[in-house]
Amino acid sequence: MIRAAVAGATGYAGAELVALLARHPGVEMSALYASERGAGGTMQDLHPRLAGMQGPPVEPLDRARLLADPPDVVFLATPHELAAGMAPSLLEAGSRVIDLSGAHRLRDAESARRWYGSPPEPALLAEAVYGLTEWCNGELAEARLVANPGCYATSIILALKPLMDRIDPAQPIVCDSKSGTSGAGRRNDAAFGFSELDGNVRAYGVGGHRHDPEIRQALGLPEGARFCFVPHLLPMVRGILSTLHLSFREPVGDGALSSAYATAYAGARFVKVLPAGQLPELRRVVGTPRAEIGFARLDEGRRAVVVCVLDNLLKGAASQAVQNFNRMFGFPDEEGLS
Amino acid sequence: MIRAAVAGATGYAGAELVALLARHPGVEMSALYASERGAGGTMQDLHPRLAGMQGPPVEPLDRARLLADPPDVVFLATPHELAAGMAPSLLEAGSRVIDLSGAHRLRDAESARRWYGSPPEPALLAEAVYGLTEWCNGELAEARLVANPGCYATSIILALKPLMDRIDPAQPIVCDSKSGTSGAGRRNDAAFGFSELDGNVRAYGVGGHRHDPEIRQALGLPEGARFCFVPHLLPMVRGILSTLHLSFREPVGDGALSSAYATAYAGARFVKVLPAGQLPELRRVVGTPRAEIGFARLDEGRRAVVVCVLDNLLKGAASQAVQNFNRMFGFPDEEGLS
Amino acid sequence: MIRAAVAGATGYAGAELVALLARHPGVEMSALYASERGAGGTMQDLHPRLAGMQGPPVEPLDRARLLADPPDVVFLATPHELAAGMAPSLLEAGSRVIDLSGAHRLRDAESARRWYGSPPEPALLAEAVYGLTEWCNGELAEARLVANPGCYATSIILALKPLMDRIDPAQPIVCDSKSGTSGAGRRNDAAFGFSELDGNVRAYGVGGHRHDPEIRQALGLPEGARFCFVPHLLPMVRGILSTLHLSFREPVGDGALSSAYATAYAGARFVKVLPAGQLPELRRVVGTPRAEIGFARLDEGRRAVVVCVLDNLLKGAASQAVQNFNRMFGFPDEEGLS
Amino acid sequence: MIRAAVAGATGYAGAELVALLARHPGVEMSALYASERGAGGTMQDLHPRLAGMQGPPVEPLDRARLLADPPDVVFLATPHELAAGMAPSLLEAGSRVIDLSGAHRLRDAESARRWYGSPPEPALLAEAVYGLTEWCNGELAEARLVANPGCYATSIILALKPLMDRIDPAQPIVCDSKSGTSGAGRRNDAAFGFSELDGNVRAYGVGGHRHDPEIRQALGLPEGARFCFVPHLLPMVRGILSTLHLSFREPVGDGALSSAYATAYAGARFVKVLPAGQLPELRRVVGTPRAEIGFARLDEGRRAVVVCVLDNLLKGAASQAVQNFNRMFGFPDEEGLS
Repeated sequence: MIRAAVAGATGYAGAELVALLARHPGVEMSALYASERGAGGTMQDLHPRLAGMQGPPVEPLDRARLLADPPDVVFLATPHELAAGMAPSLLEAGSRVIDLSGAHRLRDAESARRWYGSPPEPALLAEAVYGLTEWCNGELAEARLVANPGCYATSIILALKPLMDRIDPAQPIVCDSKSGTSGAGRRNDAAFGFSELDGNVRAYGVGGHRHDPEIRQALGLPEGARFCFVPHLLPMVRGILSTLHLSFREPVGDGALSSAYATAYAGARFVKVLPAGQLPELRRVVGTPRAEIGFARLDEGRRAVVVCVLDNLLKGAASQAVQNFNRMFGFPDEEGLS
Repeated sequence: MIRAAVAGATGYAGAELVALLARHPGVEMSALYASERGAGGTMQDLHPRLAGMQGPPVEPLDRARLLADPPDVVFLATPHELAAGMAPSLLEAGSRVIDLSGAHRLRDAESARRWYGSPPEPALLAEAVYGLTEWCNGELAEARLVANPGCYATSIILALKPLMDRIDPAQPIVCDSKSGTSGAGRRNDAAFGFSELDGNVRAYGVGGHRHDPEIRQALGLPEGARFCFVPHLLPMVRGILSTLHLSFREPVGDGALSSAYATAYAGARFVKVLPAGQLPELRRVVGTPRAEIGFARLDEGRRAVVVCVLDNLLKGAASQAVQNFNRMFGFPDEEGLS
Repeated sequence: MIRAAVAGATGYAGAELVALLARHPGVEMSALYASERGAGGTMQDLHPRLAGMQGPPVEPLDRARLLADPPDVVFLATPHELAAGMAPSLLEAGSRVIDLSGAHRLRDAESARRWYGSPPEPALLAEAVYGLTEWCNGELAEARLVANPGCYATSIILALKPLMDRIDPAQPIVCDSKSGTSGAGRRNDAAFGFSELDGNVRAYGVGGHRHDPEIRQALGLPEGARFCFVPHLLPMVRGILSTLHLSFREPVGDGALSSAYATAYAGARFVKVLPAGQLPELRRVVGTPRAEIGFARLDEGRRAVVVCVLDNLLKGAASQAVQNFNRMFGFPDEEGLS
Repeated sequence: MIRAAVAGATGYAGAELVALLARHPGVEMSALYASERGAGGTMQDLHPRLAGMQGPPVEPLDRARLLADPPDVVFLATPHELAAGMAPSLLEAGSRVIDLSGAHRLRDAESARRWYGSPPEPALLAEAVYGLTEWCNGELAEARLVANPGCYATSIILALKPLMDRIDPAQPIVCDSKSGTSGAGRRNDAAFGFSELDGNVRAYGVGGHRHDPEIRQALGLPEGARFCFVPHLLPMVRGILSTLHLSFREPVGDGALSSAYATAYAGARFVKVLPAGQLPELRRVVGTPRAEIGFARLDEGRRAVVVCVLDNLLKGAASQAVQNFNRMFGFPDEEGLS
C-alpha cells in the first residue's frame, strides 16, 4: 500500500481526487489537509457526496507533522504559491510530489516567475516531469516531482499534439475554449454568483491566461508563433469544450487525421477519438476520466475544426493526477479509475 | 414632475426600481445612491441592461446633501438598518419615504426589534402604511412613510387574504415557497455561487424567516395560529412560486373561490386570477409587474392548493413600490408599469 | 453469477440501472433491450458516459428470444403497459422480475386499472412485493415479482413511515415535492424543452398523480385520510426534494423524533438521517444511492417540517432496484452500490 | 397608423415581434397568424408574458383573407418555405414584406436553392434588400421586400464589416459563436430537452450552416476565402456571443480599431462599441435591442479577438425587423424600441 497525503483536499479538484484515491486499491490515505483557502468545514460538509467515504479527517495544513512522517506521495491541490513553498521540503524529506497547481508547469524560471509569482528553485523546474500522461514515457516511473497539467491545457494539447507536424505555422492556431464555473474554484465573490452567471457567457483572460505559455511549451511552439487561446466562462458547473481551428501545410484526408490520432493514442485508456466528422458533445465525458476528440475537415482538407471535451475536475485535474500516480508507483493505468 | 431619489440603487431590486422610474412620465430622478453594500461600480457596469437609461450618476450615499435639498420622495432599497436610520430625518426634512427594506413592516416594536435589530421610533412603526397596494384604500394618498412588503409575503398574502374567512383555523395553513437566487441580493459568498447552486435546492429559515411575522400580521392571524412558512432556494435567478395548502371550515365550490378572488381583485391591474383548476407556472410573470393566482380544490372542496407566482424583484419589490408611489402622488395605478 | 436482462435499457432510469449492474460482481448481463419508446440508438450513443462499459449490445425487445432462454432475473424499466404485459409470461418461464414501472405497485386491482390502465392478473398484484427495501424483511428473498417504488413515493414514505404513529390524523399531511426533469423521461415534447423549463417552475398533477395512491397504500392511510401530495417540476435534471409538513397528536421533542428514525433505519446503508434541526440540501445525494432525511420541529413540537432528498434515477429507481436484487439473490445490501 | 400583420406570431421570435409592435405608436396590428408549425394555442398561452397585450387574436394562417384585405406590411416569421411561397402574392397584392426567415437572404438563386430549398423567383432575390439596418442607406425607404438577417450573421457581420479592409485575406477569419436554445425554436424534439442540454455544450453545423453563405455574401468574401464559422449550442435560453479571431494585413493600434468602429456606427442607436480592451459579456444585452462589440489586440496588433453579443430574438430577429420597419415607413430608428 502506498501512503498518500492530499493538501488542498477541500477544493473542488481536491475533493474529486480524494474520492478517487479512496477507491484506489493500492492507496492508503495517511492525511487530508485543507489549504488555507479551503478551510472551514469538514470534508463531508463541503462535499456531502463523499459522505460514505473511508478516510482520515480533514485538518488544517500542518507542515511540521507532514514532514515528520513523510508519506510516499503528497498531492498538492493548493494555490500555486503554497505548492511552490512546500515542494522542496517534501522532496527533501523523501516524499514524491504530484503538484496539481501551476507552480512547476513552466520549465523556464523567468516565465514561471511572471505567471505564478515567486517560483521554486530553477533546479526543481528542470526536474519536474510535465504529467500529460498519454505523452509521457518511462520518465514518470522515476519522477520525484510531477507537474499535473492545467485543465484547458490538457484539452488543447491532447487535440493538437498529434497533428503538429501537419499544421501550417504561417497561419494562426485558434483555441476557443469553453469552461464550467468549477474551474474557478469555490470563491466568495459575487462575480461568480448564480445570479450573475446564469444565462450569461463571457470571454476572459485574452492574451493573458496562465495556460497560454503552458500550451506553447508543451506543443514546442517557437517564440512569436501564431497561436491564440481564448477561454470563456459558461453557465454550467463542470467540463471544458475546446474548439480548435487549424490550417494545414497541405490538404489532408480524413484517413490521415484519423491515423495520426490512432497512432498517438493507441492503447490510451482515457483518450477516445471519434470517427472522422463526428464532434463530441460535452456531456459524453462529464463525470468520467476520459477526454474525447473529434474533427471535421473544411475547405477540402486545407483546414479543420477539432473539438476536445473533458471534465475539468477529472481528466483536467484529479483523474490525470491518479494516472500519473499509477505510472509513478507501477500500477496499471486504469487502477482506481474504471 | 415628482422629484425622486433612490438609495440602494445598485442592488438587484434597486436597479429594477431605477429602470421603472426612468420610464415613468411623472418622475424626475434627482439622485441615485449606492448603499454601502452595493457600492463599487457605476450603475451601467453593475446593470448593463440599463445602458441607454437617462438619469443621474450613482454616487455613494451622502445624507447631508440628501437632507439639504430633500426630494419629494425617497425610495430606500437599502439594508434594513440603514433604512431604519435614515427614515426619520428624511421625513423631518419633508420627503415622503417608500421603504423597500423590512425595517418598517412590523407594527409591533418588540417584533421589529427581534427580527430587524434596532427599530425606528414606535411612532413611525405605527404611522407606516403597509403597502400591499391591492389591499390599501385611501391611506396611501396621505402616507408619509410606506413599508413596501416582502417578496415572499406579497405572494402569500395576495393568495390567502381573500379566503381567510373560509379557512379552518383548526388546521394548519402551509406555505411552501420557492424562490430564485436574486432574492438573496448580490453577495460575496461562495454559498450563493453558481457551482454550489446549479442543480441544487434547499429549504432554509424554517421557523425563523423574517417574512413569517409579516405574513401573520397582514393576515390578522392570532398568536399561536397554525401557520407554517417554508422558503426554498431554487436554481434560477428570478421569481417566486408559493404553493399554499389550505383547509376550509366547510366544503367550498369552484364558484365560491373564484368569486372571492374576483371580488378582492376587481379592477386590480396587476393581480390576475386564473380559471378554477388552472395553476400558473412561474415564467408567466417573470419580467412583469403581475402576480398570478390559481387554485385547485381537493377532497370535494374541503381543502385546496393555491399557487401564486410573481417576479420577486418587481411585484415583490420594485413595481409594487411604483404602484405605491402612484397612489401616493395621484397617478393612475399602471403609470410607468404598462 | 446471476444472469440478468434489462428491458427499457435506454431510458434515463434504465441506463443508470445498466451502469450499476455492469459494476456488480455477481451479475452477468445476458441481454439489454430498448423499450419501444426508447429505441433508435445504441446504448453508448444515448448514454455516452457508459462508453467504456462491458456488456451486450442494446437490441429491440424480442419477447420470444427472452422467453426461450429465460435469465434468472428481468428488470423491467419500460412503460407501465409493457411491464404489465410481459411480467406473467416471464414469471411462467421461470425468471424472477423486478418491475421499475408502476404496473404492479397498487395491490387493489380497481386502483391499478384506474391509474395504470389494464392491470395484470389480481393474483399477480397480490403476489408482488412492494420493494421499498428498508421496509422489507425476509419477503424479498423468496419474491418472484418485486414492484420497485416510485421516485416521489420513496422520498415521502421513507420520511413519514417512522413517524406515522405520532402524526395527528385530524390534520392534513402535506407533501410538497420538487423534482428535476429527468423524472419525465426522454420526450419529444416541446413542453420539456430547455427553452420552456429554464428559469421556470410549475406544480402539476394536483390531486391526480399516480404516486398519490401508492403513498397512501404504503403508509396505510384510510379512505378519506387528510393527505395532500403536490409535485413540482424544477429547472434541474436530477433529484427530488420533498418537503413534508406534519402535525403530531402530542408535542414531541427532538430526541423522540431522532429516536424514531434511528430505530427505523438502524443498519440501513442507504438512508441517512441528519441531526435534529438540520435539513439536507439536494446536492448531497445527486449521483448517490442514498436518501437523506432531516427535520425541524415547529410550534414547540406540535408540528414539524421534514425534508427528504434523493436522486430520482438512483434511490428513486435504479439503485433501489439493485438493493432489491441483492436481497432477492442473497448478496449484501451494498453490493454493486458502494 | 400603419396596418401590420404578422405570420408566425407564436414562435419565439414572432412573439417578441408582436410584443414590440404592440408598443409601437405608429402600428395598428391588423392580424396575427400562427404558422403551421406554431399553431395549437393562444398567443397568451404560448407567451404568457404578453398577457396584458392589446391586439387581435392569433388565428391559423388564412392566405385568402390576408390577400383580400392586404395590410401595409406583413412580417413573415415563418419557416423558410412558407415565407418563400407567400411573399410573391403579398407583394402583388400591394403589401410590403419583412421576411424574418432565410428565404430571401441569398441573392444567388443557386445558393438559395441549395440552402433553403425551392427559392422564390430570381427577380425577387435580386430585389430583396438585406436588412442589416446599420449598413443600409436609403434603400429601405423604398424597399418592397426586406430580408431580415440571421441572428448569428448579424453578430458576425456587425463586428467584422468595419475592419474588412484591414483584415489579411491570406489568413483565416475564425468565427466561433455561442447561442442559447431559443434560436432553435420551439421543437418537439428530445434532443432539445432540458434533460439533454443542461450542463452540456455542443458544436454543430460545422461547414454546413445556412448563415455561412449569408455572412460571406454580406462581407463580400470571394469564392474560396479563408473563413470558418462554427456555432455552438449552450445551456441558456437567449443570446449569442460570437468570438472572432482575426489577423491584420499590418499591425494596427487600438486607436485605429476604435476609430473604424466609431466611423461605422456613428449615430447607430443599437450598436455600442466598448473601449479598447474591454469585451462585453452576454447579459449586457439580453432583453435589449442592442448589439455590443469589444476587441482586444494580440501580438502587437497583428491579430485581434473581437467579441459581439446580442439577443438572438431581438437584434438577431424581432427588434432588427422593427428597425427596418421604421426605415421603410419613415419613423425614427428607435420608435417602439426605447
